[in-house]
Amino acid sequence: MDLSDRQHKIIEIVKNQAPITGEQIAEHLKVTRATLRPDLSILTMSGFLEARPRVGYFYTGQTPDTILSEEIAKLKIKNFHSSPVVITENASAYKAVCEMFVEDVGSLFVVNDDGLLAGVLSRKDLLRIAIGSQDMNQVPVSVIMSRMPNIAYCKHNDTVLDVALLLITKEIDAVPVVRQKEKGLEVIGRMTKTNITKAFVSLANRNNVRK
Amino acid sequence: MDLSDRQHKIIEIVKNQAPITGEQIAEHLKVTRATLRPDLSILTMSGFLEARPRVGYFYTGQTPDTILSEEIAKLKIKNFHSSPVVITENASAYKAVCEMFVEDVGSLFVVNDDGLLAGVLSRKDLLRIAIGSQDMNQVPVSVIMSRMPNIAYCKHNDTVLDVALLLITKEIDAVPVVRQKEKGLEVIGRMTKTNITKAFVSLANRNNVRK
Repeated sequence: MDLSDRQHKIIEIVKNQAPITGEQIAEHLKVTRATLRPDLSILTMSGFLEARPRVGYFYTGQTPDTILSEEIAKLKIKNFHSSPVVITENASAYKAVCEMFVEDVGSLFVVNDDGLLAGVLSRKDLLRIAIGSQDMNQVPVSVIMSRMPNIAYCKHNDTVLDVALLLITKEIDAVPVVRQKEKGLEVIGRMTKTNITKAFVSLANRNNVRK
Repeated sequence: MDLSDRQHKIIEIVKNQAPITGEQIAEHLKVTRATLRPDLSILTMSGFLEARPRVGYFYTGQTPDTILSEEIAKLKIKNFHSSPVVITENASAYKAVCEMFVEDVGSLFVVNDDGLLAGVLSRKDLLRIAIGSQDMNQVPVSVIMSRMPNIAYCKHNDTVLDVALLLITKEIDAVPVVRQKEKGLEVIGRMTKTNITKAFVSLANRNNVRK
């Protein structure tokens, strides 16, 4: 929403002098309290100002963009992640490639004998070994995967934004969604740039979905 | 922003009876015109209703979520795309893999002798050929690429949302950004799920960036 000049001025006044009453703001602007009423209602309802009875108006620190940020920050991993595709440490690189094609995923999560996260394998890892001279049937995935503890991961309750930042800063395409177990991390999901792209689309189409 | 019950009722009334004056809305709700003034201001300023002098209020079709959608729909490709990495049709698959590693990209765009878009090559295309029995030095990329006209692409002025939808529905990771030339399409950029992820983050962090 676009605020009027007067509304921007009101925000500035409250920012500097909070708590301040509606009458005092009206004095500052040399208008009547009645004139300001719609502006103050708008600013309060849209979250820029907070009104406390018998005290006055406070500035919440919000801007139109922080309100947008807050909507985005509400998006949680648990509503957007996909099922994980896992493979065991001693499986061959060849088997991993086949698994990737069969499941049509770009990342596999490698688990140890206890079923806990041991590594992550990307298409890039497999392509690197595939153009080498080694027999891919003889190379176990444990040799080419990224290995714990050097693996980025996320948890059920993290936000989509947390993971988006993680994928960008680490320059990776996917992270496992994990649950802490006594002996390590159990893989319960997969969060990829595809899931982020879907979250982006869902944000734009939310009103259609809800109808 | 959260609307009050009365504001929702006003929207319903206007939706059904537009154009309708403030006085008529007040009658419907059995309140005075003065009581409604803040509500009508809020609804007009935040874009739910449109007020036309001497005619009355109209419903714009917006909801809180459509306002969010509009912010997203403003994001254009030209502010988010990356530089393209191109390769010629007769280059070998082996050379394409090397190029992918050197440039650290997941997709290459294949161009013909005129420098115009001929195909797209993904990591998946290369991985498929890499595990086969063929010598990758002997296979030209033109044999394994996705070929025009079966290629999804976008233009400079398209929205990020358009491309996000395209990537999801076509199940691909990247599309070329192109410009129409007399004889075909010139490749001027690359739009990937990484770029969408960055757009998502920028949307959330916009207020920080602008400060």
